[in-house]
Amino acid sequence: MKALQYARAERARFLSELKEFLSIPSISTQAEYVQSMRRAASWLSSKLLEAGFPRSEVLPTRGHPVVYAEWLAAGPAALTVLVYGHYDVQPPDPVELWRTPPFEPTVVGDDLFARGSSDDKGQLYIHVKAVEAIRETAGAPVVNIKCLFEGEEEMGSPNLRGFIQQNAELLAADVAVISDSHILDKETPAIVYGLRGIAYLEIEVTGPAADLHSGIYGGAVHNPINALCSMIASLHDRQGRVAIPGFYDRVRKLEEKERAEIADIPFDREAWLREARVGTDWGEPGFTIIERTTTRPTLDVNGIWGGYIQPGVKTVLPGKAYAKISMRLVLDQQPAEIHQLIKQHFQAVAPAAVSVELRELGSADAAAVRRDSPAMKAAVRAYAAGFGTDPIFVRSGGGIPVVSILKKELRIDTVLMGFGLPDDNLHAPNEKIHLPNFYRGIETVIHFLEFLAE
Amino acid sequence: MKALQYARAERARFLSELKEFLSIPSISTQAEYVQSMRRAASWLSSKLLEAGFPRSEVLPTRGHPVVYAEWLAAGPAALTVLVYGHYDVQPPDPVELWRTPPFEPTVVGDDLFARGSSDDKGQLYIHVKAVEAIRETAGAPVVNIKCLFEGEEEMGSPNLRGFIQQNAELLAADVAVISDSHILDKETPAIVYGLRGIAYLEIEVTGPAADLHSGIYGGAVHNPINALCSMIASLHDRQGRVAIPGFYDRVRKLEEKERAEIADIPFDREAWLREARVGTDWGEPGFTIIERTTTRPTLDVNGIWGGYIQPGVKTVLPGKAYAKISMRLVLDQQPAEIHQLIKQHFQAVAPAAVSVELRELGSADAAAVRRDSPAMKAAVRAYAAGFGTDPIFVRSGGGIPVVSILKKELRIDTVLMGFGLPDDNLHAPNEKIHLPNFYRGIETVIHFLEFLAE
Repeated sequence: MKALQYARAERARFLSELKEFLSIPSISTQAEYVQSMRRAASWLSSKLLEAGFPRSEVLPTRGHPVVYAEWLAAGPAALTVLVYGHYDVQPPDPVELWRTPPFEPTVVGDDLFARGSSDDKGQLYIHVKAVEAIRETAGAPVVNIKCLFEGEEEMGSPNLRGFIQQNAELLAADVAVISDSHILDKETPAIVYGLRGIAYLEIEVTGPAADLHSGIYGGAVHNPINALCSMIASLHDRQGRVAIPGFYDRVRKLEEKERAEIADIPFDREAWLREARVGTDWGEPGFTIIERTTTRPTLDVNGIWGGYIQPGVKTVLPGKAYAKISMRLVLDQQPAEIHQLIKQHFQAVAPAAVSVELRELGSADAAAVRRDSPAMKAAVRAYAAGFGTDPIFVRSGGGIPVVSILKKELRIDTVLMGFGLPDDNLHAPNEKIHLPNFYRGIETVIHFLEFLAE
Repeated sequence: MKALQYARAERARFLSELKEFLSIPSISTQAEYVQSMRRAASWLSSKLLEAGFPRSEVLPTRGHPVVYAEWLAAGPAALTVLVYGHYDVQPPDPVELWRTPPFEPTVVGDDLFARGSSDDKGQLYIHVKAVEAIRETAGAPVVNIKCLFEGEEEMGSPNLRGFIQQNAELLAADVAVISDSHILDKETPAIVYGLRGIAYLEIEVTGPAADLHSGIYGGAVHNPINALCSMIASLHDRQGRVAIPGFYDRVRKLEEKERAEIADIPFDREAWLREARVGTDWGEPGFTIIERTTTRPTLDVNGIWGGYIQPGVKTVLPGKAYAKISMRLVLDQQPAEIHQLIKQHFQAVAPAAVSVELRELGSADAAAVRRDSPAMKAAVRAYAAGFGTDPIFVRSGGGIPVVSILKKELRIDTVLMGFGLPDDNLHAPNEKIHLPNFYRGIETVIHFLEFLAE
């Protein structure tokens, strides 16, 4: 197939373009990067035009803009696929732990290191280059293609639902495809059919109205850090189960058939421990590691701060303490209800001598995808062609909130066609993309767009 | 008395000199202020010469220098008093909560606002100006005076004991006096006869060797922040007692006589709540607020940090979490033993899936001072002369580690002649000194130096 040959011949240029994309610090959550966000959007939009899309635009939202492109040459009778991706990235901190600067993309061996290399600029760009390869060799794709690349995924996509609602006609499609997940290992492709949802909040505990001397007041004024720690400790029981009353009430029992299927997924505990860089695993008893991270809801403190956090000592009894807390949710758990449950729990356990304020920072539903749709079948064949082996069906522990938004607003299913690897260091220092996956990804997408039309 | 008249006449100049002293950011715990520390030391040394001390030097230590001065004109048969103070200050953060810049001393009404105004530059400077007033009017003090002003008190005085050991002969004296505490209110002087000790440590909890994505690994990798919070929660029981096994074993039962005396100290709970800026008090049951803050050992988290602490959301499962923890100790509790007990406790409660490292950041013994010594009697008379009313004897919740060091190394007692107020915002934003106390302090010290010789 000529498109494949073209894609192989152009690898060096594709890599150099990706490096250019990754060098733009498109950090959506921090206000000082607003110009970089715009620059990333217009860079991406121009690359879509160059790749062959006759229409490509940067469309405003109430936050960071959306990049939209379409190529409808296959005609109204043909299938339309909507490609979703996000051009924003996580903040790079702690920056001091990066071995190469996060926004100076660096190739080491077969890996390209940079913030966003795998999540999600690198995986998004696979689709742009697949379309270019088809254009250069076949003239036009045999399905209609629309692209929706948002800039607020790492913020919890606050404006995405509204944008899709307002542009439902523009975005109308038969199926969506997203490359923002990982496969099992570099030789074992996988298709994600389940995603966890999320409820994310911030807690602010106030003790005295100003910082006090811990020698003068310690023992008679409740310390908000100690109070916060007690409240956080109450969120789990000793075994690692979440201890918020009602938290598991809606969680479906895992069917024996699915448990057996999960048990069949190749899993090397030692390799997993090496990837996670921990000495031992932890968590809810009665479930395997894969079950705990993909089929069970969980709770993590993502950040905590209060008092004196510089080197040396300060004998302060601080006025405030804060934490960011997120819960991963599974099917049937409602984020709004979970927010309510944790709020009630904190109200119940908060000591009388401090005050507690909670702020919701994000919500997304869990999602499941049908495995027997024509598009899923095309994806299976495409992976087999691109990687030389059939993909395995897996659930993901992370969330891609857009999947349930697309289902609800556009009534379409999503194929989660990931090309990342489990050790890509998403949201962590030294994020990378494995370059052979990037190139195989482009070939897999070329196959996918062809098989979709059959 | 002419010295008093002189001190009254020179108030404006004394204030302007103090403002100059306070404008030097002598923050001992932060490396970038090392030049300011030297500047503060040499400024103070030159002022001691100007005040009449024939000898004044900046003496090196392994850390920040000591300012030493002496005036031995009273001769070998006369009493020698050693004045201790510290010219270093706490870091000013959180800077944004200061109403005036911490190192731009500002008078508002009767108060002078600046970091160090009360703790301890302002109180230390009282002694310098008292000696100047005596020199200008009487020619020379009737007792011998030595000054030991250190620059590491806010770091836990790491080099002070060694310095005193090496200079025991130079520093030999009959009694020490320190102004680094507060009186009850501006009309009610107080003499501190008991100080709490301290054991200060930092805890570092390590989970995964690098930050992870909380969606991918949450529920199967133990989160070090959650683990740290559980460990901190275990440090108190539900009633507010410290729950470290053995913590109270050496604590002496409060005698009924002293309890009755404490109950007689004028105490307005509503005023105390206003000062502390809290809605209610908290702490160990069975003890009054004064008892809890001065006669009972306590534990506070002084700082905590880990994970993502910027605005917005980041779904990270961090590799590290940290806290700074200090315990205030009372007589007979040994800091080294308490460090050992908390270490054993953390080892006992640390979850197997994380590792815990503890670093000792400081230690000081609790101290008690005899109330019937000639120097204490001179101090009582001096306060009565300076403030027009007899002082009350109280214990302090804070610690002045030098008191037990002076007792052990030089075998002398210390008179704690404080001039601060309870609402001076020590270690907090908007630290101040009440200027009438500064001026009355100078007069009280003039009386004290006179009464000492009788």
